[in-house]
Amino acid sequence: MSTIETDFLPAVGTPLDAVSTPRAVIDEARVERNVQRVQDYMDAHGLRFRPHIKTHKIPALAHQQLEAGAVGITCQKVSEAEAFASEGVEDILITFNILGPGKHEPLRRLNERVARLTVVADSRATVEALGAAFRDAVKPLTVLVECDTGGGRCGVQAPADALDLARRIAAEPGLRLGGIMTFPPGDAHGSVERFLSDARAMLETAGLPCPVVSNGGTPGVFQAHLVPSATEHRAGTYIYNDRSMVRAGACGWDDCAMHVLATVVSRPTRERAVIDAGSKALTSDLLGFRDYGHVEDWPEARIASLSEEHGVLDLSAVTGEGPAIGDVLRIVPNHTCVVSNLFDHVVFHRDGRVTQVVPVAARGLVW
Amino acid sequence: MSTIETDFLPAVGTPLDAVSTPRAVIDEARVERNVQRVQDYMDAHGLRFRPHIKTHKIPALAHQQLEAGAVGITCQKVSEAEAFASEGVEDILITFNILGPGKHEPLRRLNERVARLTVVADSRATVEALGAAFRDAVKPLTVLVECDTGGGRCGVQAPADALDLARRIAAEPGLRLGGIMTFPPGDAHGSVERFLSDARAMLETAGLPCPVVSNGGTPGVFQAHLVPSATEHRAGTYIYNDRSMVRAGACGWDDCAMHVLATVVSRPTRERAVIDAGSKALTSDLLGFRDYGHVEDWPEARIASLSEEHGVLDLSAVTGEGPAIGDVLRIVPNHTCVVSNLFDHVVFHRDGRVTQVVPVAARGLVW
Repeated sequence: MSTIETDFLPAVGTPLDAVSTPRAVIDEARVERNVQRVQDYMDAHGLRFRPHIKTHKIPALAHQQLEAGAVGITCQKVSEAEAFASEGVEDILITFNILGPGKHEPLRRLNERVARLTVVADSRATVEALGAAFRDAVKPLTVLVECDTGGGRCGVQAPADALDLARRIAAEPGLRLGGIMTFPPGDAHGSVERFLSDARAMLETAGLPCPVVSNGGTPGVFQAHLVPSATEHRAGTYIYNDRSMVRAGACGWDDCAMHVLATVVSRPTRERAVIDAGSKALTSDLLGFRDYGHVEDWPEARIASLSEEHGVLDLSAVTGEGPAIGDVLRIVPNHTCVVSNLFDHVVFHRDGRVTQVVPVAARGLVW
Repeated sequence: MSTIETDFLPAVGTPLDAVSTPRAVIDEARVERNVQRVQDYMDAHGLRFRPHIKTHKIPALAHQQLEAGAVGITCQKVSEAEAFASEGVEDILITFNILGPGKHEPLRRLNERVARLTVVADSRATVEALGAAFRDAVKPLTVLVECDTGGGRCGVQAPADALDLARRIAAEPGLRLGGIMTFPPGDAHGSVERFLSDARAMLETAGLPCPVVSNGGTPGVFQAHLVPSATEHRAGTYIYNDRSMVRAGACGWDDCAMHVLATVVSRPTRERAVIDAGSKALTSDLLGFRDYGHVEDWPEARIASLSEEHGVLDLSAVTGEGPAIGDVLRIVPNHTCVVSNLFDHVVFHRDGRVTQVVPVAARGLVW
């Protein structure tokens, strides 16, 4: 890595308002509170909790989640799983149909290296490719059947299809059937529970094991108990929270642990301010919003448009002068997970001072 | 940097269809043609050309642009400029109001290190801060007045304001007035030329120098000659091109040098395919489109939605079966510059084989 980035990272003890912008900063106390709150909820409902590391991509935070009581972690990529296995994480679920050039060999090595590795599959093609890759493996790979319970992404379409695919998995000598998994729609209406309980019943009737029923999603994290068939829940965003989570009612602004710090670099007109954070700091993710983040001290200011390194604020609803050139703004991003993926390092702080500068170890790991 | 990324990059000579996905790949022959075509146009119209490196963030490509005849490069960040100065680029324009903690000291060092460094300013606050930082510098910093000629981002609002700010710059002992600069609106309607020619005339009448009139933008790159006051033009995207450039009429699909390779990992329904490229590979930039890229072999397939690591294709307009699980798709992204900023490495190819794997040196340099 170039030293151009690392040379200008803030030293421990630097006041937060002296950190060079744009920069993603993380409130340590809020992270601790968010980790504990969700773990307490899962414990209270007897749900095993398996946080998704896509949000932070930082092994030390995964260990913090595990120490709080999580049973393992969730990744989306073999390369991400590698990064966390390298730092001692021993129970990893990769919620992805792993296919394509160059993926199976590292997956095999990873399976031999960690105590428990699990992947998902939603088609015969995925199962056959995994089966071929693991036929002569010293240790079988555990596979869950991915079910589309309304999320409209991957997954078999009906419980009977889950049974069919489970049979295929069970028939592969290199694979071990581990159960079922879903990435649910935002609002369940009972359909998630119906699908999962029907599928599990069909597997069990057929004499197939279904020890794991893995449900997921942060926006509905505190409704996870409404899917009683689930044995475990996955969530990622809750550790930092973001504007979308506040809108979903899952947290308040004071629970948002990530901010993007940005400096006002221009005030061309009464109604326009320009900040040094654009789509390469905040991302273009709207998640249903019409603007690009919540400006903490100026909630009436709208981040109306982004170019790559500029954010244009519409101040027409702001009373008074609005922020001045040189002011540093704290912005809660729409979607925290994609912001983590832009920065090689994030800055942790407590009581207004930098406590750590942490590499985002799994940033940009794409395969 | 973690070796998890570098361990699994393709070797030189690998066939393109054996490259692990998702991956941004670059067609070398198309890059050469794009570089030459725009340089030829600028030469034909007597315009100095100053390519913006935000698109590729790779020093070797900047040198290719300079060898073709570019006079220097454009950056948006001090850290980007550092990365290119470290690789021997000697004429750099940073088109940004440089303000905020920790920026001025590295800017001073950079100014002493390269032959020609220029920045822009659109306010007294920016000029005063630069003036203070460079008051006792051994070499003055060249500053252009940024003008808002309709782009609605940064810039003084009227030619008279440009004159006022030019006077301020000229009065600072550590600064040198270099002229004026604009980031124009997509469609000029003559307003860009009027603003720039009026501002230059006012500076010259006041006895102030205005050797540089810097215009910019790729979508209108082949209309650059319609702003005769400009002495130089800046453009970035033209080196790779993308879907937005095809829509703008500035190139054809065969001029698009960047593709994102993605594998079809799921076919849950007749009308839905899921690929392993989501917003962490394609970005959420829509740029006015309603979907997230152009699928080269399946132009009727719409990349209807992205989550972080999944792209969901709507195949309802596709005749026949559509792509199968395991197929590798070549996608022209909506906006190439932001895709470059996601990948630590890009893969160059020629005649269907990998020729180089190149670190994206200035990726993630944020300050």
